[in-house]
Amino acid sequence: MTTTKSAYETAGVNLQAGDQTINLISQAVKSTYNQHVLAGIGAFGGLFDISFTKTMTHPVLVSSTDGVGTKTKIAAQLNNYTGIGHDIVNHCINDILVQGARPLYFLDYVASAKLEPSIISSIVTGIASACKENNVALLGGETAEMPGVYTENEFDLVGTIIGILDKPDLIDGSNIKPGDKILGLESGGLQTNGFSLARHVLSEHYHDAFHDSTIGETLLYPHRSYVTPVTPLLDAKLIKGMAHITGGGIIGNLPRILPENTGARIDTSSWTPPAIFTLIQEKGNIDTTEMFNVFNMGIGYVLIISPENLDKTINVCPEPLHVIGEITEGTGVTLT
Amino acid sequence: MTTTKSAYETAGVNLQAGDQTINLISQAVKSTYNQHVLAGIGAFGGLFDISFTKTMTHPVLVSSTDGVGTKTKIAAQLNNYTGIGHDIVNHCINDILVQGARPLYFLDYVASAKLEPSIISSIVTGIASACKENNVALLGGETAEMPGVYTENEFDLVGTIIGILDKPDLIDGSNIKPGDKILGLESGGLQTNGFSLARHVLSEHYHDAFHDSTIGETLLYPHRSYVTPVTPLLDAKLIKGMAHITGGGIIGNLPRILPENTGARIDTSSWTPPAIFTLIQEKGNIDTTEMFNVFNMGIGYVLIISPENLDKTINVCPEPLHVIGEITEGTGVTLT
Repeated sequence: MTTTKSAYETAGVNLQAGDQTINLISQAVKSTYNQHVLAGIGAFGGLFDISFTKTMTHPVLVSSTDGVGTKTKIAAQLNNYTGIGHDIVNHCINDILVQGARPLYFLDYVASAKLEPSIISSIVTGIASACKENNVALLGGETAEMPGVYTENEFDLVGTIIGILDKPDLIDGSNIKPGDKILGLESGGLQTNGFSLARHVLSEHYHDAFHDSTIGETLLYPHRSYVTPVTPLLDAKLIKGMAHITGGGIIGNLPRILPENTGARIDTSSWTPPAIFTLIQEKGNIDTTEMFNVFNMGIGYVLIISPENLDKTINVCPEPLHVIGEITEGTGVTLT
Repeated sequence: MTTTKSAYETAGVNLQAGDQTINLISQAVKSTYNQHVLAGIGAFGGLFDISFTKTMTHPVLVSSTDGVGTKTKIAAQLNNYTGIGHDIVNHCINDILVQGARPLYFLDYVASAKLEPSIISSIVTGIASACKENNVALLGGETAEMPGVYTENEFDLVGTIIGILDKPDLIDGSNIKPGDKILGLESGGLQTNGFSLARHVLSEHYHDAFHDSTIGETLLYPHRSYVTPVTPLLDAKLIKGMAHITGGGIIGNLPRILPENTGARIDTSSWTPPAIFTLIQEKGNIDTTEMFNVFNMGIGYVLIISPENLDKTINVCPEPLHVIGEITEGTGVTLT
C-alpha cells in the first residue's frame, strides 16, 4: 500500500479498487461452482467439464449474449443493485430455454466510469445468487473501469449463457400448425425490456407509492427464470415451440419461432396485465398496439402446444398457465 | 415507414436504426458460419454442433469474457473502427489459447448512447473478419442503444469466446520448474491494455506523425491472435505453460500460471520494445517497473519450455521467438 498515486491512477484507473472488488466477489462466484468447474477465478479461461455429453445422441451447445438495457439507469438512480444480477442471468437462461437447452454456465461483464467495490459486489452477488437458483456455474467475468466512456454513476451489465441440448430434443417450432394453442407464463413486470420508454414516462415518479411498494421498486422487479415451470413440460414432450417475450413484445418475438404461412391470434382479454403497464400507458398516452410492441404486458414466456395436450399441459405445469390465443394461417400476430 | 415518431422513438430509442444495423451486419456474420452452426442470427440462442467431441477422451469447454477497455475512446475519437473488432476477438482467443484450447465460437456485444448503423457495421464486420481468420463462428451478439448510460459518441465492446480442449492436452503450468526457458512472441503494440494511461499521456498528439503513421493509428494497431504460431508448438507437445500478456503486463500475468515457490527472471534487454512504449514512457515520465506493470512492452504472449527443447521449439515455431528469461525459485517476476 502506498499513498503516492501511480501514473496509472493519475490517469483515472484505480487498481486497488479492482483488487478489492475481486476479493469481495470471489466468494460469491465460488459458491456457484459445481463438479463440472475445473478452473474459474484467476485462470485465463474458465474450464467446464462436458464429459457427461458422451451419453447424448448428438450434443449441441446453445449460447446467447445480452444486456439489461437502461434498467441499469433506474438501479443506479435508486442505488438498488440487488435485482439487476437476477435480470441478466434469467434473461439469458430464458433465451436458450426457448430451444430446449439446459443452462450450464454463465459469464458476466460489468463496466462503469469508476469501480465502486460495494456496487460491483452487490451486482455480482446477485448474479451468483441467480446462477445458484438455476444450478448454473458463474464460470468467468470481467469488471471494467472506463472513465469517459460511461456517464458518471451509470453502468452497463452484459451476460453470456452457455447451455446444452441433445439434438433430438431441440424445440424449433417447425411442427407448429394452425389450431395449436398458445399458452402464457406470467412475467413479474417489465422484466428487462422497454425501459427507455418507461423511464421517459415515469422518471419523475420513482419514489411515488404504488400498491405495496414504489413505482421505482416495481420497475426494478427482477426478470423471472422460466426453467422451473418449463422443465417438466419439456420432460413430458408436450411443447412444440416457445418464445421469450423480450424487446418487441409478443408481436415481435412470437413470429421468430413460427413456420412460414403461420400466424397467431392473441386474445388480450385472456389475462390482466400488471398495473405497472396500465400506469405507463395512461401516463404516456400510448396506444395499445405500441404497448404490445414494446412491453411483455404481463406474459413473459409463451408456449405452443397441440390442442389435444391442453389439459395435460395445464396439469403438469407447476404454476398457472394462461390460454392466450391460437395459431392461425397467414403471418404475424393479430391482437383481438 | 412513417414520419410520426412513436413514443419509443420519442424516448430516444430508434428501432429502425436497430433494424438497419441488423441488415448491414447479417451478411458479415453469416460469412463466419461453418458446418457446426445449426442456428445463428434471428434465433433466441445460437446453436453449435459439438458431436465431434465424441472422439475426445475427456472434452472440456474453455470460456472467457472480456472488453477492450478505453481503446474504444481512441477509435471513436479518430472515427476509425476497422481494427477494434480484431482486438476483442483476438484478445479472447489468446486468453483461452493459454490453456491449450481451440476456439469454436464467439459472441459480441456493442453498446452506445445512439446506434449509428455505419459504425456498428464497421465494428461487427471487423469482428467477423477476425473470426474468419481464426476459423471461429460468430454465433451470436447484441447491439444496444443506451441513451444516458454512455457518453455521447463513445461505445463499449465486449466479447465472449467458447473453445474446447481434450483434458489430457490441458496446459496448466503445473510441470514448470526452475531452469525452464521463458520465450516471448511479439505484440503489435499496446494490444488492448494500458489505454487509460496511454491516453492520459498522448491524448493531445493522436494526429502527430510517428514513423510511417500517426500516434493515434499506432495506438489502434490491432491485438494479434497467437493461434498460428502456438498451434504447431502445442501439436509437438513442446509447451509447459503459457501466459497472455494483458492488463498487469508480464509482471502481473506470468505468475498466474506458475506453480508455488516458482518465480521468473526476465531480461528486459533481450528484446527491443516498439517505439510507442518508449514514447509513452518519456512523455509521461513513467518509471520502467510501472511500464512493465501496465503494458506488454512488445511481448504479447509468453511460453515456458524445458531448456532441452529450446532449439526444437525455435525451429517449429513459424515466427521469431525471443528467449526473454528463465524460471527461478522464489516468487514473482524479477526484471533484470
